Amino acid sequence: MPRTVDHEARRREVIGVVWRLIAEEGIQAVTTRRIAEAAGFANGALLYYFPNKDAVLTAALQHVFEVTNARADAADPDRRGLAGLRTLCLEIMPLDEERIVEARLVITFWQQALNAPDKAERHARFMDHWRSELTTRLEEARRDGELAETTAIEATADELLSMLMGLQVLGVLSPDETNPERQLAQLDEFLARIRGNS
Amino acid sequence: MPRTVDHEARRREVIGVVWRLIAEEGIQAVTTRRIAEAAGFANGALLYYFPNKDAVLTAALQHVFEVTNARADAADPDRRGLAGLRTLCLEIMPLDEERIVEARLVITFWQQALNAPDKAERHARFMDHWRSELTTRLEEARRDGELAETTAIEATADELLSMLMGLQVLGVLSPDETNPERQLAQLDEFLARIRGNS
Repeated sequence: MPRTVDHEARRREVIGVVWRLIAEEGIQAVTTRRIAEAAGFANGALLYYFPNKDAVLTAALQHVFEVTNARADAADPDRRGLAGLRTLCLEIMPLDEERIVEARLVITFWQQALNAPDKAERHARFMDHWRSELTTRLEEARRDGELAETTAIEATADELLSMLMGLQVLGVLSPDETNPERQLAQLDEFLARIRGNS
Repeated sequence: MPRTVDHEARRREVIGVVWRLIAEEGIQAVTTRRIAEAAGFANGALLYYFPNKDAVLTAALQHVFEVTNARADAADPDRRGLAGLRTLCLEIMPLDEERIVEARLVITFWQQALNAPDKAERHARFMDHWRSELTTRLEEARRDGELAETTAIEATADELLSMLMGLQVLGVLSPDETNPERQLAQLDEFLARIRGNS
């Protein structure tokens, strides 16, 4: 079914352009007409791919989630244990301009999800995916003897996921205090502690 | 100047009512007319206190920040060291309905601050205040011999602040996974590690 495949590719192409528009200019300022223009469509043609701005925003979050994971895979497709955990974290943390724009999109989605249970559910599933990867890396670290004996895996994965989400906000809204150096320092402090280097 | 004092009191009273309206119904759904009604004003009279919805939102964030600190002071006005650190954290974490509504307001403010440098600056100052208190508590903990020797105070305060902000999102958008029990487990895992109980 080549037509179907083309449409899916075109849909992804549109989102690859417009997620940044929403992130940079703000969801309130971006109309569907603006989105259509940025994607090189007539307004009506955009509707073929996305029924409304909400659908664009949800696809944009999915895009950000996927490119983050793709970067982690590119950095190390066989990541394992604490080094592998660090590889994923580095791609989620707002350490450069690209990832700061991603964080802006994520914060927008959070607010839009406050009164949209389907969006909150979608977000919870993305979080499950990351929590699950963090847990797997911690279990590998335990098997490889990298973790302090007292480190509790579930609570540690929860803690790291919270830290990563908090960094989205702090990296965007207080970039002077939450600069890349301090983000890395806090990640490495965390890793040193769960290793039990004391 | 009793009139001035009355106005300030009335202003606070208005915010004490309307912050919850914004948090629960969503900033998009809440008009200044709705805010005026909730506060028991004519629409024009509200303008005397707040020139626009933005000003209401900023005052609402300030309110949430102040009531959080007031709860921590009520729980322990002389909080010190790691026990004192935990007291403040418990008041920031979305552990009950009241604090989940507060977290909703905070997430709304974050998004509105994305394209409003004055709001981002305001938020950064609130974060400074908490980072500073967390740092003071950690320094007391060090003096009292409660901290592992290797615990680096700046990175640890940064990490805890990130975790607390991430919990705002996760507690609101994934309450099943980020329930009160798991929030407490991750806080206590963190505290056990910085103590160096290994």
